[in-house]
Amino acid sequence: MEVRARAPGKIILAGEHAVVHGSAAVAAAINLYTTTSLRLHPAGEGGGADSGVVELDLRDSGLTFSWPCSQLRGVLREESGRVGVPTPCSPDQLAAIAKLLEGHEIPEAKIWLSAGLSAFLFLYTSILGCRPGKAVVTSDLPMGAGLGSSAAYNVSMSGALLTATGAVGVGGGDGAEEWELFGKHDLELVNQWAFQGEKIIHGKPSGIDNAVSTFGSMIKFKKGEFTNLKSRNPVKMLITDTRVGRNTKALVAGVSERASRHPEAMASVFHAVNSISEELSSIVELAAEDEIAITSKEDKLSELMEMNQGLLQSMGVSHSSIETVLRTTLKYNLVSKLTGAGGGGCVLTLIPMLLANIVLDKVTTELESHGFRCFKVEVGGQGLQVS
Amino acid sequence: MEVRARAPGKIILAGEHAVVHGSAAVAAAINLYTTTSLRLHPAGEGGGADSGVVELDLRDSGLTFSWPCSQLRGVLREESGRVGVPTPCSPDQLAAIAKLLEGHEIPEAKIWLSAGLSAFLFLYTSILGCRPGKAVVTSDLPMGAGLGSSAAYNVSMSGALLTATGAVGVGGGDGAEEWELFGKHDLELVNQWAFQGEKIIHGKPSGIDNAVSTFGSMIKFKKGEFTNLKSRNPVKMLITDTRVGRNTKALVAGVSERASRHPEAMASVFHAVNSISEELSSIVELAAEDEIAITSKEDKLSELMEMNQGLLQSMGVSHSSIETVLRTTLKYNLVSKLTGAGGGGCVLTLIPMLLANIVLDKVTTELESHGFRCFKVEVGGQGLQVS
Repeated sequence: MEVRARAPGKIILAGEHAVVHGSAAVAAAINLYTTTSLRLHPAGEGGGADSGVVELDLRDSGLTFSWPCSQLRGVLREESGRVGVPTPCSPDQLAAIAKLLEGHEIPEAKIWLSAGLSAFLFLYTSILGCRPGKAVVTSDLPMGAGLGSSAAYNVSMSGALLTATGAVGVGGGDGAEEWELFGKHDLELVNQWAFQGEKIIHGKPSGIDNAVSTFGSMIKFKKGEFTNLKSRNPVKMLITDTRVGRNTKALVAGVSERASRHPEAMASVFHAVNSISEELSSIVELAAEDEIAITSKEDKLSELMEMNQGLLQSMGVSHSSIETVLRTTLKYNLVSKLTGAGGGGCVLTLIPMLLANIVLDKVTTELESHGFRCFKVEVGGQGLQVS
Repeated sequence: MEVRARAPGKIILAGEHAVVHGSAAVAAAINLYTTTSLRLHPAGEGGGADSGVVELDLRDSGLTFSWPCSQLRGVLREESGRVGVPTPCSPDQLAAIAKLLEGHEIPEAKIWLSAGLSAFLFLYTSILGCRPGKAVVTSDLPMGAGLGSSAAYNVSMSGALLTATGAVGVGGGDGAEEWELFGKHDLELVNQWAFQGEKIIHGKPSGIDNAVSTFGSMIKFKKGEFTNLKSRNPVKMLITDTRVGRNTKALVAGVSERASRHPEAMASVFHAVNSISEELSSIVELAAEDEIAITSKEDKLSELMEMNQGLLQSMGVSHSSIETVLRTTLKYNLVSKLTGAGGGGCVLTLIPMLLANIVLDKVTTELESHGFRCFKVEVGGQGLQVS
């Protein structure tokens, strides 16, 4: 039996950085997915459960890892297997996992790898115990670019594992759709497990990335509270990955320092961002039935994006690569906004419904001539799906 | 007898656009001057007062104009000659001036010319009556670029005319300085006359441009009230004129429309700008005695400029030419901000005291390669001076 689960990446539509200072922010799913294909080996195959192996094939990076099932016992806890109650990875488990990684050669350039393998080993053993099996992971998402690649990894992995164990499942549709959706209750469970994986990778994640990847659409978050938004008329955007690496912690600290140097001005800046996020939240939930309505919705969105970008620049988190994207898209009358931490990373450009493809191609070509990588995406679509 | 009076241009350091919505703004004098050299013909020369001519030589544009004194009588009012009480140009005077212009060929491309000639004829006749004389005007300032060229013209002209008539005068220094300053009372009088000239050119000027050009240094203005700031340690800036023409009225209207579409967010944006202008006002008045203190002052200024620029972008008054300047200077780690209306026009770049000349040369060359025109200026220096 093979289970395939795919989970989307995310963008921050509004409110990054300001959210740290109490403003609302809005995150949205994008149709770039990480897909986990999981095949459990039948008992007995390869010498039975205890003598089988658990394999992880990270297809995009050409790396595969395998562990004899017998070695995985050390990671298990007494309560392991109670998949209905996601539990955090204990220090003992983490130590056992670290031991499992010792024998493997991990390329220095791939610093994310240890964390990703640890999350895999934790989720696999917590949900499936020591059953032999193989997970193949592929992804459309660039890593470390702020598009939620680790959350999509944890969500698709958790979704595949929980489906394989029977803890969650799709209603068994008519088979007309390749990909099927889970019910809300099942999604909650997947989301909680994915969050445990995120904690292994990030330490103290906000939980917003895995929530967006699991539930899809858009989520408004403010002071730790999430509100699911029903996004109508998904918008198209161009995501430009500047490929400039960022130090998110330093950027966040820089904004806080600026806020302490200019408390009054920065409080107003954060307040302006809050208003923008709230306004954007109500706009995305409006249904637009015709071209005129969609165009006017796009105009509002692009104005709010432009305002938010200006405010991010006033926080000091822009970067010359971001300015290059802004300047390039502005030539074509398109509005752009950095997404995520800034200081490089990714930039969003709203693609109006009525924009000619030839213009979009020209912008893309020009952006890519700077060494950037562009993705044309739909924003606010589905979350976790299985097939 | 020849009188030379020179008056500086201005930049807006902080608060443009937001000032229309009640925020504070800060304007500063720059060491780019408009100079008026005035020579009165002795009575009898050229056939006596009534048969002499009044000439205006706009040296930079190669245009000269002259009017027989006898024709100027129509512009005079009963109270003309009471130079101590500046009075606005009456509709009758304006009509008489329009008649005086009829016989002159005014190139179509020079739309500012009629207004400039009108202001000259009004100021000349109001202050000197029909005495024959010649005024030669030269200027370092680009016209229509938001650097206060018309105010500098009116202030230098008023300063020269009032000095010639003896209504104002310098104390008669030791002659060691080429240029001498007026006393406060005299400056007030020049400023009021210059304001009358500004009204002829602009209709409803705020009065800030002529005030900065007259008094120099920096002025904070908020809700129609002016506060003179004592700027210490004048800063150096690079002014880049993008040569992109702007429609100031449309830009101001655009911000107001955005404010009515997004009242809450924009109110916060304007409030943030107000905080920046207030903070900047207190920083420029701080005396910095050593390099470390000056450097830290520059750091604060450039951070406030960056914040203000971001807020201007969130108001939607940037332009691709401005973005090009920002991106170019950012490559050299220099902070820039549009000044004035935006949508093209001029951009300020703070030049840190410790910046190597070779770097400044490189930035300038790169900016000029885009077709921009750069001016290296000192900000916050003297106002009107005579020699």
